Amino acid sequence: MPEESKPPTRALKWEGGLHLLDQTRLPGSTEWLHIQSVEQLISAIQRLSVRGAPAIGCAAAYGMVLATQDCSNGEEWKTQLLGQGKALREARPTAVNLVVGVDLMVNHGLTLLDKETFDPNAFQTSMLEKAKSFHKADEESCAAIGRHGATLLKEGACILTHYNAGPLATGGDGTALSIALEAHRQGNPIRVLADETRPLLQGARITCWEMDQAGIPVTLQCDGAAPSALASGLVDAVIVGADRIAANGDVVNKIGTLGLALCAHEYNVPFIVAAPTSTIDLQSPTGDSIPIEERAAEEVRGWLGVETTVQGVTTRNPAFDCSPAKWVTALVTEKGIIHAPSTERIAAQLS
Amino acid sequence: MPEESKPPTRALKWEGGLHLLDQTRLPGSTEWLHIQSVEQLISAIQRLSVRGAPAIGCAAAYGMVLATQDCSNGEEWKTQLLGQGKALREARPTAVNLVVGVDLMVNHGLTLLDKETFDPNAFQTSMLEKAKSFHKADEESCAAIGRHGATLLKEGACILTHYNAGPLATGGDGTALSIALEAHRQGNPIRVLADETRPLLQGARITCWEMDQAGIPVTLQCDGAAPSALASGLVDAVIVGADRIAANGDVVNKIGTLGLALCAHEYNVPFIVAAPTSTIDLQSPTGDSIPIEERAAEEVRGWLGVETTVQGVTTRNPAFDCSPAKWVTALVTEKGIIHAPSTERIAAQLS
Repeated sequence: MPEESKPPTRALKWEGGLHLLDQTRLPGSTEWLHIQSVEQLISAIQRLSVRGAPAIGCAAAYGMVLATQDCSNGEEWKTQLLGQGKALREARPTAVNLVVGVDLMVNHGLTLLDKETFDPNAFQTSMLEKAKSFHKADEESCAAIGRHGATLLKEGACILTHYNAGPLATGGDGTALSIALEAHRQGNPIRVLADETRPLLQGARITCWEMDQAGIPVTLQCDGAAPSALASGLVDAVIVGADRIAANGDVVNKIGTLGLALCAHEYNVPFIVAAPTSTIDLQSPTGDSIPIEERAAEEVRGWLGVETTVQGVTTRNPAFDCSPAKWVTALVTEKGIIHAPSTERIAAQLS
Repeated sequence: MPEESKPPTRALKWEGGLHLLDQTRLPGSTEWLHIQSVEQLISAIQRLSVRGAPAIGCAAAYGMVLATQDCSNGEEWKTQLLGQGKALREARPTAVNLVVGVDLMVNHGLTLLDKETFDPNAFQTSMLEKAKSFHKADEESCAAIGRHGATLLKEGACILTHYNAGPLATGGDGTALSIALEAHRQGNPIRVLADETRPLLQGARITCWEMDQAGIPVTLQCDGAAPSALASGLVDAVIVGADRIAANGDVVNKIGTLGLALCAHEYNVPFIVAAPTSTIDLQSPTGDSIPIEERAAEEVRGWLGVETTVQGVTTRNPAFDCSPAKWVTALVTEKGIIHAPSTERIAAQLS
């Protein structure tokens, strides 16, 4: 079928229930998971079947619809809302969008429960509408990020990206890769250089797949090859997403981003961070206070279940690192572009 | 058996012929390859059964013994020496030790052939002795590098290393890791943080195995995790080997080294390069003129034959990168330590 009519790639959908594209199986298999409880959703988040801060936020909002589906009285609704909300909030410690999605739904639910005439059916309908509008807002944010960011790219730019900040990381077209997709739609013959992103290879598995689906030329490299690409002048812009951005513009993103930020700075290549404003956490004045999740040793010790090192070797496996704001050339949100982000400039855009 | 009596780990040995420990099979299997021709050796070098610039140099010297084993007259000896030498020289483009090992043997052979009374048996014996003395010299170089380098380490230092510059990369105890092994023998409770080093995971497969064999605590991380380790103050020194060092001190080493050099510089962690003086190529004034080998796409697209990305995706797979001398804190050779290496300081040590 002609390229224009291809349905856009999406991470999740609500069709009589929550469905997630199982990202652990890509690109070999495109399989949808039907999520029927918060418990199942937490497990899917933890094994990274759904990942990417905005996508986790959207999934969490729908998850809170599931949290109260079997309740029979007001007290039970409240207990489920708060209890399941707490459990879901803690599924992963770094992504702020998860907390935003859960809290929005808990607060909405509590408001409904406080009404004098409580109607269970209306409650579920209103919760679902709230989750859908949160998802829709994320989709619109992605599109706006793409439009703003595309103005930063010269004709035929080579974009280096790390991890996956594409459609499957969000409720829409992605953050970093929404910029690539929008530039491509506008006829700019951009190219993408994708870091494979060990340990779980989301760059190799997901970014390459998404770019291939969209017809954007993509080249894959190992993470260690990025500095020489930057040093050799092969890259016009580094564009990455973010899991959490501190009030001062420090960026917590997938492990390996810090090295890119420093190298881009050293070789005068713009380092652009694309994220919705919901990723900005004003409660964290700098990146230092943001907790960094340590993940399982098995991710580092092997490859597709095959051990590639000495059995039982100790590992260091932080999921994220923190790039200081001073190396961020521009922060692109749905509200526009913040050049050389700082506490003041970020606060000004948010206000 | 008690730890002291363990035989040291070695990459190659001559026992009635050339034997190479097949490094593509580690750590799962320790299998020796019996190499019976230059053709077999070239194939072993290209598929990285033997790797590490000094080890390749030693293997190449023994390879030139094999080159002339079946010759029957003087003209044939010469043709074989030059022809097989040329083929072996070109097995990999970056490691200068390969060229050094081959040229030494070719020149030695030509000198023997020029003698008035040529004795085929004496020729083969003399060629083998020459290769053994080249191997022995590398072993002694490694030991000297270890002794010099160990003086740079504080008590209990954490050493970050990339790729594998241990015993299996040389004819002796290694270059970077000879320093770790010597410090450990001296009773310094050092620890090693090893980058796994994609695409072929020599850090995970070989460095971890060697450190485990030696009883040195080792922690494995993905390559992208190194910048955050440096930023967090976890590392006391970065120590790496080199495939070729330019006259000015620019260091060509395994892909990913450049990012470490820059990060170490940024976070004030000493960046130490350990290599025998045979790795220094005075014919290359700077690193810019050193050819960088591009390797097969399959190395990036998957692991152990399992594809992990979109089929046929384009890759960028340079085997090496070049770290500028300005970020090298010290160069440790068998002759001593060159602090802040420069063309002048390197020339002074070599003279």
